[in-house]
Amino acid sequence: MLSSKELQELLERLFPIHRSLTGPGNVKTLEILKEFIPGLQIGSVRSGESAFDWQIPLEWRVYDAYIENMEGKRIVDYSDNNLHVVQYSQSYEGKITREELMSHIYTNVDLPNAIPYVTSYYDDYWGFCVSENFKKTLRDPEYVVVLRTEKFVGNMHFGELLLPGKSKEEILISTYICHPSMANNELSGPLVATSIAQHIVANKKQQLYSYRFLFLPETIGSIFYLSRNLPKLKKRVKAGFVLTCMGDNQNWSFLGSRYGNTLADKVSIAILEDRGIKFDSYSFLDRGSDERQYCSPGVDLPVVSIMRSKYGTYKEYHTSEDNLNFVSGESLFESTELMLEAISILEKNVTPHASLLCEPFYSKRLIREQSRENRKLTTYNKKISDFLAYSDGTKDLIDISRIIGTTFDETHKICCELLQAGLVRTRV
Amino acid sequence: MLSSKELQELLERLFPIHRSLTGPGNVKTLEILKEFIPGLQIGSVRSGESAFDWQIPLEWRVYDAYIENMEGKRIVDYSDNNLHVVQYSQSYEGKITREELMSHIYTNVDLPNAIPYVTSYYDDYWGFCVSENFKKTLRDPEYVVVLRTEKFVGNMHFGELLLPGKSKEEILISTYICHPSMANNELSGPLVATSIAQHIVANKKQQLYSYRFLFLPETIGSIFYLSRNLPKLKKRVKAGFVLTCMGDNQNWSFLGSRYGNTLADKVSIAILEDRGIKFDSYSFLDRGSDERQYCSPGVDLPVVSIMRSKYGTYKEYHTSEDNLNFVSGESLFESTELMLEAISILEKNVTPHASLLCEPFYSKRLIREQSRENRKLTTYNKKISDFLAYSDGTKDLIDISRIIGTTFDETHKICCELLQAGLVRTRV
Amino acid sequence: MLSSKELQELLERLFPIHRSLTGPGNVKTLEILKEFIPGLQIGSVRSGESAFDWQIPLEWRVYDAYIENMEGKRIVDYSDNNLHVVQYSQSYEGKITREELMSHIYTNVDLPNAIPYVTSYYDDYWGFCVSENFKKTLRDPEYVVVLRTEKFVGNMHFGELLLPGKSKEEILISTYICHPSMANNELSGPLVATSIAQHIVANKKQQLYSYRFLFLPETIGSIFYLSRNLPKLKKRVKAGFVLTCMGDNQNWSFLGSRYGNTLADKVSIAILEDRGIKFDSYSFLDRGSDERQYCSPGVDLPVVSIMRSKYGTYKEYHTSEDNLNFVSGESLFESTELMLEAISILEKNVTPHASLLCEPFYSKRLIREQSRENRKLTTYNKKISDFLAYSDGTKDLIDISRIIGTTFDETHKICCELLQAGLVRTRV
Repeated sequence: MLSSKELQELLERLFPIHRSLTGPGNVKTLEILKEFIPGLQIGSVRSGESAFDWQIPLEWRVYDAYIENMEGKRIVDYSDNNLHVVQYSQSYEGKITREELMSHIYTNVDLPNAIPYVTSYYDDYWGFCVSENFKKTLRDPEYVVVLRTEKFVGNMHFGELLLPGKSKEEILISTYICHPSMANNELSGPLVATSIAQHIVANKKQQLYSYRFLFLPETIGSIFYLSRNLPKLKKRVKAGFVLTCMGDNQNWSFLGSRYGNTLADKVSIAILEDRGIKFDSYSFLDRGSDERQYCSPGVDLPVVSIMRSKYGTYKEYHTSEDNLNFVSGESLFESTELMLEAISILEKNVTPHASLLCEPFYSKRLIREQSRENRKLTTYNKKISDFLAYSDGTKDLIDISRIIGTTFDETHKICCELLQAGLVRTRV
Repeated sequence: MLSSKELQELLERLFPIHRSLTGPGNVKTLEILKEFIPGLQIGSVRSGESAFDWQIPLEWRVYDAYIENMEGKRIVDYSDNNLHVVQYSQSYEGKITREELMSHIYTNVDLPNAIPYVTSYYDDYWGFCVSENFKKTLRDPEYVVVLRTEKFVGNMHFGELLLPGKSKEEILISTYICHPSMANNELSGPLVATSIAQHIVANKKQQLYSYRFLFLPETIGSIFYLSRNLPKLKKRVKAGFVLTCMGDNQNWSFLGSRYGNTLADKVSIAILEDRGIKFDSYSFLDRGSDERQYCSPGVDLPVVSIMRSKYGTYKEYHTSEDNLNFVSGESLFESTELMLEAISILEKNVTPHASLLCEPFYSKRLIREQSRENRKLTTYNKKISDFLAYSDGTKDLIDISRIIGTTFDETHKICCELLQAGLVRTRV
Repeated sequence: MLSSKELQELLERLFPIHRSLTGPGNVKTLEILKEFIPGLQIGSVRSGESAFDWQIPLEWRVYDAYIENMEGKRIVDYSDNNLHVVQYSQSYEGKITREELMSHIYTNVDLPNAIPYVTSYYDDYWGFCVSENFKKTLRDPEYVVVLRTEKFVGNMHFGELLLPGKSKEEILISTYICHPSMANNELSGPLVATSIAQHIVANKKQQLYSYRFLFLPETIGSIFYLSRNLPKLKKRVKAGFVLTCMGDNQNWSFLGSRYGNTLADKVSIAILEDRGIKFDSYSFLDRGSDERQYCSPGVDLPVVSIMRSKYGTYKEYHTSEDNLNFVSGESLFESTELMLEAISILEKNVTPHASLLCEPFYSKRLIREQSRENRKLTTYNKKISDFLAYSDGTKDLIDISRIIGTTFDETHKICCELLQAGLVRTRV
């Protein structure tokens, strides 16, 4: 697991890289992540290949992009900020009128100093993004526009890491690497995923479940991956998480699966409740990331998102202000910790069944103490007794914890003690 | 579909006719309705025949009925208002004391100017109904009473119209024709039923479902009909409606089936909600018309009522004040429209299943536009996306509309577009 | 059924007897109860025998127990109150310092005049219980302590009474006989059980169900009994009750089964609601008596408790103040009556199915009257009609009574009338 400091450093290192659906920035990003999780496989798929209803897009590269004013001064330059270019802009060079330029300029009027993030993946177009305040300064009658980009049959890259556990059943951790310089949406996701993966690799004791980490271009990446792996995933994935928007320190949010009734939903709510975290709960109608694919009809994987400030709900979202000021190593560390706790619940979440009929003879088994004066059980002993009362084979530890009012960890501790005492059997 | 004016004229034409369980008024009523829906079959069944626990009653006719005071003046006369006679009164002629007369006089003290509607179908009895205020004027010591009526082994008549659709599955529309001159309960029901039937007949495009219209004497009529047709109806009826109390303009009401969980319940609530209509919701414990038979144990048909002011809840109910002032052609037209919309929902209510895995490639399919500046979908595109997300084969259009917050019509429009684009398959 | 006076007398007679898990007081108690229910079998099981995880304890007897002060005066004497001895104290004789004595003295600081009830069943120990106020008077430097007790391989006794009904299916009535002189917890339970049993024996008409009455030492007694009879009980017990805390007049309480969804839960709530009794409803997490065993995983019997003031909720609980002032014959009589009503519901709780399709021809069957003036049914006739509407074979009388808003008794009366009229069939 990466420390706050390591996360901060990695964040700062990855931030300037120009990621998009495809391109060298994506490969570079994956190579840097591979330094931390050497098992990461960098895969690729050829432009034009099919994936369900989709095709893998052309590869896109930006060589240079700027606007010069009449004095020949570069007033907008891609090398200053990769958000200046509408993503997937085609090449263009020429002198154009102010009016014509304006039809290719995007701003965000609500955040007048921010450069917005704009894409045009699937049509032939070019454009620039600037701040609203900067746009107001554009008074020259003509400008020189230079966009040296290339779209060609190349590759779309993605990262994949499978950490085998005792079981072939999997926990899926999916995140995306297709956004230029923005921090919460999206760098927080790959950073937390990397930190989780590193923690699992470092763990000497093999985990129960296998863990599949995916670093994909959003939407097309998950659609591609599902198109190649669906039967296996449907068979194996027990719970999954889309990691996104996990780096700010303002909120906690939860977005559930289509019907909100999977193990992934249950474990997420349990850990948020157990930690006493106030969180905004969003329904599947508020979805917006790769759960759109994972939870789609016929795919039906149990995938949810635990987030900090959810995409689309904070003003800096999809602008240059979703930057290193908005996100911190500390928050990324906290988010990683919470996810590891959720994972820890999944690993420990067995279904207990009392192995004896009736209550055990506690006095002999020395499990609980009871004062002579007061027949009331101590709180802990009462919880042991309640745990056994609901260890009927129909409820897992998460369920029992909600019924008897203990945290999952307390519930698990009770379960371990009772297992050791031979008072329960468990099954995964 | 009849216009407000046509409905008003038909209402006024049918209003004076003396309907009862049997008798010439019923036949006359059905013959008038047949002018508007020529396919209407006028059937009959012989007095004394069995129908489950019941027998078809004797036919009843009234030739003359009046009360004369000591001056020989007709002070109560059946020819003024057919409500003056207790329905199914036997013949009687004689001079009787005021006291004896009083034991045969019915009034409604809460509505002192109204003549109440009283029946005595199944015992030998005679009586007159007058207003409470009129009753108070009866001071003579003796009166002459003349009731020239006849009960005999004749026929009970009913109307039936089956409009075949592409499917043999049926929508059942049942209403009753057994009340003397009262407008909301009951003429509104046969009028709306006739107007719906005319609309379906006039519709050039054949409807999916077959439509069965029944014009029955209440209770005995539906019991008789069920006794002759139950296995067929159980097999075919997908949803049904008892039409009654649909002519006033004061309220909207809904009365559900035994457990409130049939398609008829679902479609009724959907249309009332979609239209933004505030309505009083009644449980099956408040039932009072032929759903008593249709929803009875072992019959178990999915039958409900959408009404305006529900029977028994308005003061004019079952009196001479439930008259042409209380009911209007406009309200009947509105009620017909609402029922046609409910029917339209039933006709269109398919269960969609996404035909692709994952989200479709919307850009290619030109289904939705997305601005470059703002990755947020337009409201309509968001609804398309939500629709597909729940097109998992377990929810019909009504269900999906409630989940994603669209009206049924919007939901259906989305479904059609997606069908055409090949993005969903549907099944009825 | 015992009268209030008889219950009061029996209470006063049983109160002074020293009951514990074992010992002569238990046998004496059972022998007295046998006077009222001669069929009661007094059974026994040998110390050391196994019962699931437990062993039957040694038999314990107290011959003498007192504390003398330095003047040789008996200041605490078991013969004054059997609560003075910590239950299952071992023998001890000797002169000890005040300090040493204090480590063997128990009081209840919240109730400074009460002697608390303390047990030490399963370890070698001795102790005395006194009031807090008395303890403060102990100023002598030394005391003589005499505890002449015996623990030996003997027997644990219990009472059992099976009253066969027409069916082998059983209602289980379980109560406990292991507490020294305390009235609500526990004498109320055996008294009410005895009175119920006597009532059933006296009843000339054989009841439908068999009734199994158990008088057991709490916990070890029910565990022992289950260990010998579980398969039979699982097969036969339709509903069961642990009788305890039924003698005060302050509250009514209900404690449900593990998931609160058994027939025993349903009947208890029905009778409390029907009687208009306000009651505190406790979940299985608040359990504390032999339902801990009966409802344990794998045992899974449908057992609940209807109580007055629940154990642990009243200040006199487990002290010498849970005495004859706290409990009365009147309250015991009331509790018996309520339990008999619950039993009566169980005996009568059939599932009706309408034997006719559609509504019956009420006029012919003379079941309900309907005035000519007012087509509204009388309340009673409306209930008959509602009853038939839900007599669909999926609801028992308790269910129907909750749906149609009648008490169980009213519902049963309707059912009987309809049975006699041939309008419903019923099954148990």
